[in-house]
Amino acid sequence: MSALPRAKIRLCVEHPLGAGQAVSLSPDQAHYLFGVMRKGVGDHIALFNGRDGEWTAEVAEAAKKRGILVCLEQAAPQQMPPDLWLIFAPIKKERTDFIVEKAAELGCARICPVQTEFTNSGRIRQDRLQAHALEAAEQCLGTFVPPVDDLVPLSKLLAGWDAGRRILWADEALVGAAETLADLPPGPWAILIGPEGGFSEAERAKLRALPFVTPISLGPRILRADTAAVAAVTLWQSALGDWR
Amino acid sequence: MSALPRAKIRLCVEHPLGAGQAVSLSPDQAHYLFGVMRKGVGDHIALFNGRDGEWTAEVAEAAKKRGILVCLEQAAPQQMPPDLWLIFAPIKKERTDFIVEKAAELGCARICPVQTEFTNSGRIRQDRLQAHALEAAEQCLGTFVPPVDDLVPLSKLLAGWDAGRRILWADEALVGAAETLADLPPGPWAILIGPEGGFSEAERAKLRALPFVTPISLGPRILRADTAAVAAVTLWQSALGDWR
Repeated sequence: MSALPRAKIRLCVEHPLGAGQAVSLSPDQAHYLFGVMRKGVGDHIALFNGRDGEWTAEVAEAAKKRGILVCLEQAAPQQMPPDLWLIFAPIKKERTDFIVEKAAELGCARICPVQTEFTNSGRIRQDRLQAHALEAAEQCLGTFVPPVDDLVPLSKLLAGWDAGRRILWADEALVGAAETLADLPPGPWAILIGPEGGFSEAERAKLRALPFVTPISLGPRILRADTAAVAAVTLWQSALGDWR
Repeated sequence: MSALPRAKIRLCVEHPLGAGQAVSLSPDQAHYLFGVMRKGVGDHIALFNGRDGEWTAEVAEAAKKRGILVCLEQAAPQQMPPDLWLIFAPIKKERTDFIVEKAAELGCARICPVQTEFTNSGRIRQDRLQAHALEAAEQCLGTFVPPVDDLVPLSKLLAGWDAGRRILWADEALVGAAETLADLPPGPWAILIGPEGGFSEAERAKLRALPFVTPISLGPRILRADTAAVAAVTLWQSALGDWR
């Protein structure tokens, strides 16, 4: 579908993309493109906005803190992830960053940090986590960036939950054979991963009582929370998602 | 099987473990246990050696750079991983550390770093990677630490390969539906993950020609090498390993 070679540098923009469309860069993007990467007028860059696929665009104007690119042709169609959310309790900084990066890479549609009874951190840097999701999409030729929600208490999230979206709960107390996810119904899902200390007894009782929650085991070994997140998303994608 | 509460601090030792067995600590372990963790005579520690399961041991002698523990009772049986090796091309330091940690957590029996045509680093710190595998086992209540080999060229590894061990090759050129691994034969396997730049054309041709190599896709998205390693081990474990 594309006659031009695929541009190496990729930027995510807000602007609509289409043939002949002019797109303004943010001051940060202009600095990165012209200052750091030494690109200039006439160079080709890949643009995506989460809706219109990837477009090859040519630099039309380049200044220190601003720039204009013009879309030439679509390089790849828009690729949306399946309707899978990842709910997780933030852990140490590096491992939290890692979970967000991997969720974006593996194809989650939304990332929901929750505070549980045993969650260490009472706050997150939502903007920093969102930037990690964006960077993962830019690096891995993605055309969609999953939104990262603000931190909410798990109890509040569950109180307002739409029962039409099932929750796959990686229950760290279930250490044994992994479930066969292929038997689960398709449709909207969310994966729930606890913090390092697992869930409290009260949380576990509540989760067990919810009709839309399915507990699963992730094998006979104890996994760190970040490992459990990647393993659960992988198993869901291969059984119910778009890896099939 | 165990009457004593499971000790929180876990140490991997070389020594055989059994009821009444006295075990000497290394200077580093004695420093960690008595200097850093402030443990002393009478305290209980968990010991494992990769063969005899986990044992609860009591500190019998504590000095600055040495110590003796006596095994009281077995706290958990020995748990061996299935016969799965992970072959991977080292990438950036943090992501290489991550791959080794995750391979140990997810249950690989051996970790084989290989140098490919597009591998950036010409050397690894084998001792540091081995320490990461050990720490993962200590943290995640494991009783087995996968050995980490020295870096070898992929061509040399393949030249001496035992054809009885099949290789599951995460072929980054196969972007599409993920394979159904359940159709693959059981037995000894190795997973092969390339570097960030993928494999060269010559390497790909060689791999395709080997009868014991099976290429697989890991879904429709491009994954970083560390993500591919975790996803591939997860899929293998759930289809052919001990997560079934």
